[in-house]
Amino acid sequence: MPRGIFITFEGGEGCGKSSHIKALAKYFDDKNIPYVLTREPGGTRLGEKIRELLLSREDGAEMSARSEILLFEAARAEHVEHLIKPALNDGKIVICDRFADSTTAYQGAARMIDAQSTSLLNSFATGGLKPDLTIVLDIPVIEGLARAKSRDRGASDRMGSQKSEFYEKVRRSFLELAKLEPERFAIVDSSGEKSETFAKILSIIKNKFNV
Amino acid sequence: MPRGIFITFEGGEGCGKSSHIKALAKYFDDKNIPYVLTREPGGTRLGEKIRELLLSREDGAEMSARSEILLFEAARAEHVEHLIKPALNDGKIVICDRFADSTTAYQGAARMIDAQSTSLLNSFATGGLKPDLTIVLDIPVIEGLARAKSRDRGASDRMGSQKSEFYEKVRRSFLELAKLEPERFAIVDSSGEKSETFAKILSIIKNKFNV
Repeated sequence: MPRGIFITFEGGEGCGKSSHIKALAKYFDDKNIPYVLTREPGGTRLGEKIRELLLSREDGAEMSARSEILLFEAARAEHVEHLIKPALNDGKIVICDRFADSTTAYQGAARMIDAQSTSLLNSFATGGLKPDLTIVLDIPVIEGLARAKSRDRGASDRMGSQKSEFYEKVRRSFLELAKLEPERFAIVDSSGEKSETFAKILSIIKNKFNV
Repeated sequence: MPRGIFITFEGGEGCGKSSHIKALAKYFDDKNIPYVLTREPGGTRLGEKIRELLLSREDGAEMSARSEILLFEAARAEHVEHLIKPALNDGKIVICDRFADSTTAYQGAARMIDAQSTSLLNSFATGGLKPDLTIVLDIPVIEGLARAKSRDRGASDRMGSQKSEFYEKVRRSFLELAKLEPERFAIVDSSGEKSETFAKILSIIKNKFNV
């Protein structure tokens, strides 16, 4: 069966995911390489509705940690089944803004859901599908939060309104995940110039997939 | 810690759950016994929103089986944490229209999710909470469907539009669950007169809880 390439981007607040993903999409556009750009939570019609539930501050105030992780996984299951797998089977490159590792980092490490449950839920929702490459954009928490703040101009949603201690845990969790699966992960220092960071990302992708 | 009584009602289409639950609530009203009446999926604000996603035929058409079960469990986790457990801790009786056994029967037995995953998801979402009593209202499938049809006057939602083979599997699954935990389950034949069926239900509850 033909199979595409599944690339995910992970990282904390203000790590630059969105702009580097855009730049990567432009690179593929310029080379006429077919790709699909998507994000989590979301990516499908149902997934975007679940995203609304998750990001809405009003409902979030009463949401239990277990319910939150199950909603992320429900959106993910739909995403894998109806968007990611079909695109990969078509031989496309799928670029995804956050995937299962974000659940491990955010819900698992920082919100007190045990690691075994997080891992079981991730593998149930994905049906065992793993990215071919996961790029973690790493930036000191204080720097990332300052960038995010200037980007959002003070606006904030539920996922973006935690304390810096929370983001320290998230950052550590991504770095630990990368150590556990060094062949899948690439950690890219995202604290320097945007163009330099993107050059590093592109070089990793070119070397790994010959695109 | 003071603890109330957790009673769930289960059964296939047209088994009479709603009307017997109403009759039970009236019995508790008349005796001034404090109770909470609730249902799944739903029971909380977030749960009712998830219910809308699950019952909407338009979205259901594209919903994967894994996403569906995860949505049920997300609603359940919220329900347990923010409604059922607090009410039980207040010493109340909680009467719930469907609970985790419905997931085992509907998603597990009939929709090809493996039994181990269903069981893990149920126990994650409930945090291990089990009903003190589960009443299965049992009725031959063809009879139940006829009742449901006359009740709904032809209207149908996604959960109610399956084939009778599907409901045979659901019925068998409830009966098998009851065999596995005879101390928790009571099977009540629901094919006769409504008043007779309710008398049986009430007698089981009185005998078990002395209410």
